[in-house]
Amino acid sequence: MKPKQKKYNVCLIGTGLIGGSMSYALQKAKFTNKVIGVEKNKVNATKALSLKIVSEILPLKKAVVESDVIILAIPVQAIIKLLPQILSVVTHQTIIDVGSTKQPIIESIAQHPKAAQFVPTHPMWGTEYSGPEAAQKVAFKNKAVVICNKKQIKKDALAIAQQVYTLLGMHIIYMDAAEHDLHTAYISHVSHITSFALANTVLQKEKKEATIFELASGGFESTVRLAKSNAQMWVPIFLQNKKNILDVVLELEIQIAEFKKALVYEDATSLEKLITHANKIKKILK
Amino acid sequence: MKPKQKKYNVCLIGTGLIGGSMSYALQKAKFTNKVIGVEKNKVNATKALSLKIVSEILPLKKAVVESDVIILAIPVQAIIKLLPQILSVVTHQTIIDVGSTKQPIIESIAQHPKAAQFVPTHPMWGTEYSGPEAAQKVAFKNKAVVICNKKQIKKDALAIAQQVYTLLGMHIIYMDAAEHDLHTAYISHVSHITSFALANTVLQKEKKEATIFELASGGFESTVRLAKSNAQMWVPIFLQNKKNILDVVLELEIQIAEFKKALVYEDATSLEKLITHANKIKKILK
Repeated sequence: MKPKQKKYNVCLIGTGLIGGSMSYALQKAKFTNKVIGVEKNKVNATKALSLKIVSEILPLKKAVVESDVIILAIPVQAIIKLLPQILSVVTHQTIIDVGSTKQPIIESIAQHPKAAQFVPTHPMWGTEYSGPEAAQKVAFKNKAVVICNKKQIKKDALAIAQQVYTLLGMHIIYMDAAEHDLHTAYISHVSHITSFALANTVLQKEKKEATIFELASGGFESTVRLAKSNAQMWVPIFLQNKKNILDVVLELEIQIAEFKKALVYEDATSLEKLITHANKIKKILK
Repeated sequence: MKPKQKKYNVCLIGTGLIGGSMSYALQKAKFTNKVIGVEKNKVNATKALSLKIVSEILPLKKAVVESDVIILAIPVQAIIKLLPQILSVVTHQTIIDVGSTKQPIIESIAQHPKAAQFVPTHPMWGTEYSGPEAAQKVAFKNKAVVICNKKQIKKDALAIAQQVYTLLGMHIIYMDAAEHDLHTAYISHVSHITSFALANTVLQKEKKEATIFELASGGFESTVRLAKSNAQMWVPIFLQNKKNILDVVLELEIQIAEFKKALVYEDATSLEKLITHANKIKKILK
């Protein structure tokens, strides 16, 4: 007989796309007895209950005390706000955050005596949609998750986070938090800025919305897909990762200027070089 | 008994992604007796034959004379080069091009006595891949195709082009060529420039390719997907639509600068406004 897997009470703070999808997966994997939700948005709380993302909604302190594993799946400035309050209540609990920035979150509680019970993570999965109804029952699988500053994490807390992400079917990458924030500026944050900016460009200049609608083919849709992402999540990410993002945007502006220069001079050779260089992304992506 | 549909000999100039996919669809719809290929690239000619995109490869003049409908599915500067040669040979034939620019192509043969047998079109479908092996058997369906400057086209030639695109399952939009070139600058051409520039940014700054590979999630992939597109096709498009593209890139730079300014001043209100505005693209896309 296989030893019975230990079951945990999970406190899910934030019942949206990421939190909701994690809850579905952890319930299915029988990791949890019950998922207690903390959700200040009443509409989302009701949806999360009816979608069975959580079995009850409790106030923060009560939910934390009744749980073994706490998952923080809320915008990054809200993580920084709640994390010290949670740490001041926990006894044995493991706290896992899933925010897109890591350095500012880790720094915000670095001096706390229970900081080692906090596991800073970033699962590299998401869609441009948000809220409990955006949560998906099959998500995360075969994607990467970053766990930062491993050495500062208590052994049992790290083990639980590893178990969570293994059950989700993700492969774990360990990384320094500062390194993580730089890489995500390239890989994720600036992609969002270019999508937002491109959407605003089209909306600014193209007055005939019907024409956009008619003509927009796959290419345009995939490029501006991220422009549907919500401000509540992205404003705090941009602000927390400001330095890295500005650095990448500066390089992006230089790269766009290269295209502009080649165009102005009708310099086919340079255009070809720029495109052929960009094509190297093929090798990296797949 | 249904009247038998007239069958045409098709001359397919260019046997890549678009030409190949059109050939598959027109053969399936029994529009054509045979598809004669014109393909100067010998490797592609062999592939097109073995994939049954074409049943034979002939030199340009011979292929044109033996056909009823000529489809030009080659890069836009090659269209401008071949179009006068084709017009000087045709008798009854209809010529359809599928290039991403329209104004420069139309202008290049405006004075030709047989110009009315040319139907300038742009089917709004494609992928980032190219060559005969990129051709798909199910393509184009439910997408839009633009036919430009309808009034200048001979009735029977227009009717054949309409039949072709109806068989492909596309809905036809009629548009002035200048208008088309402006809209595609927004919808398609500048999306490609931002993707190329973003790919070059990442390749420039991110030296650890393995990290990009590991971390790149769906968002990054969809934003840089177009950066896999090939130079042979895109350099001439950029050059031919230079004025419109530069105009749009200028607006894009302004929009990126708005994000930069808001970031530098840590101005959450402005960031939120910029993102919320970009979100309006939702309504337009779907």
